[in-house]
Amino acid sequence: MEEELKGMVEDLQVLKGSLATLEKRVQNVTSLAKTTPTRRSKVKDMSSEVIDSNPYSRLMALQRMGIVENYEQIRDFSVAIVGVGGVGSVAAEMLTRCGIGRLLLYDYDTVELANMNRLFFRPEQVGMTKTDAAVHTLSEINPDVVLESYTMNITTVKGFETFTESLQNKKFSTSKHGTGVDLVLSCVDNYEARMAVNQACNELGQTWMESGVSEDAVSGHIQLLVPGETACFACAPPLVVASGVDERTLKREGVCAASLPTTMGVVAGLLVQNTLKYLLGFGQVSPYLGYNSLKDFFPTMEMKPNPQCSNSACLNRQKEYILAKPARDASAKAKMEAEASSQTEGPLHLDNEWNISVVDDSEIEGSTSNKSDALPEGLVRELPISDNYENKMIPVETNAVTDDLDYLRKQLDALNAD
Amino acid sequence: MEEELKGMVEDLQVLKGSLATLEKRVQNVTSLAKTTPTRRSKVKDMSSEVIDSNPYSRLMALQRMGIVENYEQIRDFSVAIVGVGGVGSVAAEMLTRCGIGRLLLYDYDTVELANMNRLFFRPEQVGMTKTDAAVHTLSEINPDVVLESYTMNITTVKGFETFTESLQNKKFSTSKHGTGVDLVLSCVDNYEARMAVNQACNELGQTWMESGVSEDAVSGHIQLLVPGETACFACAPPLVVASGVDERTLKREGVCAASLPTTMGVVAGLLVQNTLKYLLGFGQVSPYLGYNSLKDFFPTMEMKPNPQCSNSACLNRQKEYILAKPARDASAKAKMEAEASSQTEGPLHLDNEWNISVVDDSEIEGSTSNKSDALPEGLVRELPISDNYENKMIPVETNAVTDDLDYLRKQLDALNAD
Repeated sequence: MEEELKGMVEDLQVLKGSLATLEKRVQNVTSLAKTTPTRRSKVKDMSSEVIDSNPYSRLMALQRMGIVENYEQIRDFSVAIVGVGGVGSVAAEMLTRCGIGRLLLYDYDTVELANMNRLFFRPEQVGMTKTDAAVHTLSEINPDVVLESYTMNITTVKGFETFTESLQNKKFSTSKHGTGVDLVLSCVDNYEARMAVNQACNELGQTWMESGVSEDAVSGHIQLLVPGETACFACAPPLVVASGVDERTLKREGVCAASLPTTMGVVAGLLVQNTLKYLLGFGQVSPYLGYNSLKDFFPTMEMKPNPQCSNSACLNRQKEYILAKPARDASAKAKMEAEASSQTEGPLHLDNEWNISVVDDSEIEGSTSNKSDALPEGLVRELPISDNYENKMIPVETNAVTDDLDYLRKQLDALNAD
Repeated sequence: MEEELKGMVEDLQVLKGSLATLEKRVQNVTSLAKTTPTRRSKVKDMSSEVIDSNPYSRLMALQRMGIVENYEQIRDFSVAIVGVGGVGSVAAEMLTRCGIGRLLLYDYDTVELANMNRLFFRPEQVGMTKTDAAVHTLSEINPDVVLESYTMNITTVKGFETFTESLQNKKFSTSKHGTGVDLVLSCVDNYEARMAVNQACNELGQTWMESGVSEDAVSGHIQLLVPGETACFACAPPLVVASGVDERTLKREGVCAASLPTTMGVVAGLLVQNTLKYLLGFGQVSPYLGYNSLKDFFPTMEMKPNPQCSNSACLNRQKEYILAKPARDASAKAKMEAEASSQTEGPLHLDNEWNISVVDDSEIEGSTSNKSDALPEGLVRELPISDNYENKMIPVETNAVTDDLDYLRKQLDALNAD
């Protein structure tokens, strides 16, 4: 029995040793599990300090370079992205890395392996909703951004209602703007969803940007839409769009649209670059910019609203825009005069010994011809006066090279190539 | 003692229960650790089947759309990317998602939080080398791509040697090409590294593409360089480049270049789109394409090699190109004749009742004036003959609108805006 008791004591010692080893292993696994996903901590203020640990140094440098006056105001802006696919997800990542204040994401679809030929989503996210997967990735990239995920279809009655309500939520807004968001980006892949975004933005008077990629994957476009001021999506559809057939119908027939990460990346980049120019007030925002990748050709144009537009909300915004014309003109004139007076405070050139000055032609012209004057009795105008004329839909070439036949031929060639 | 023995039996039962629970927990943790990173499995052949689980369906659709003749040959190509920063990393991700055969990545830098304002790298990768972090992410996205990581500086003597050796490794190559890679993409941020890529490619006769983004983050460019045929980087530096000052020097002074995910995403997209066009043979590859984001202006041009280039390898390639001219002309002529004869097999239009045909002017001209003919004694040419002239550096506007003053003014404005 003495032997047995000795053996039991030895067994207990072995057991103790095993337990100690086990405890150590549990501790190791616990610390491993904790350290694997190192998240970057939130940053209170955007610093321009040039150190490796500052995620905003290269953005704040835009101020020193003279590109942006106040970069940090990007934190005050809310942007809604409708459609988190090949273009929308990349646009969301770009805005997140730029440190946008708040992003609202709308999509009803789930991540599939068939989406892996475009940027952003990863194979391990297959099966997740696109909005949830995006929020997960984006919050890891930049925890400073407020992210709102709306997993729903905006083309259903209930979805449309939630969509317009969410756009009007002003809890984040600095309330200078009409709605609770500063810009809506449409990154959807079908006509029906575009018309839903158009309807909501026309109703709310919300400025938005359209984007699209062709079904053959080699061309795309972006477009700025300001209700009442520019053509709405119903006034005239853009030149290059997906055919408008629902993607689900196509899938059923064993056929799908082609897509490339390059075209979608370029379109997302152009879209967000114009978003930054619009929000932060630098450069020129393009009214319409096309991308024909086969010829590296980038057509531009401008479209006025159509007074015969089928969308009644668009017609209401057009009326408001016309009614606000005198106020707009007065404010533009005041601004011009203020600029002119600030310029005439001193001589234009320091070495302007003889005080030579340039007389503004437009003021002289303005005093002799008053457009809104009624004509004397018995006379009628041969051509419509500009006040009526400006609201007709006129595609305008911003390049001012319309008289160049080579250029026109190239545009036609490029369009025919689609 | 009977009590004690009973207690010991009970203690053992409790211990057994705890061990069983512990064993179950270890099993659970093991299965959890296994399932978290679901990797997509390798795919043997690229299928065009339209199912959610096919990562290549949207790429193979390019064939059905008539854009690409044989998409799957992308698996035969090797592309080297020098510089895995804001442009290079996105270019690598695009090519990986497109299913490129093999990618060679070169960089000596590590990931920092200061890189988070551009796409691709994530905060949890901070401290890793850019090449290792990229290989990790890319292999998860698409395990079909062969990835080679070179963590080194190609501007050192040893680095340059390893670089040129790795470009010549033909183990993957289908050996139709001179080196072991089909294209080199330069995505570096300084002049010294560009000159190193230029030197290597001139020595090897390797076609490459240059890319760059300006220090103020709002413009960029891509350029195709074919040794001997087009200007090399030393023949004439591109219009828009980073200033050439080493980034590390700038950092020391507490100053850094600005950067934006948008500009870099667009440049990467244009670069890889032209890579796909070059490799898969569709559309037109741009010799030079600029991107001025403030005006959404995209200048194009073409540059011939400089016969006074300071780079001796470039001069050697130029000589070879001139020597190969007769062979090139003969093959071009044979191709044209083959096309012409296949066209004349039937009438041009099915309803061409009177068999009207168009006589080719160029053939008649060609028979009356023979450019390579020696002049009769006593006569000298007033202007250099085309054979000599074509090798002088002549910037050529591909748009053929050089006579349009508006267009020129716009180009100048855009360049001044940088």
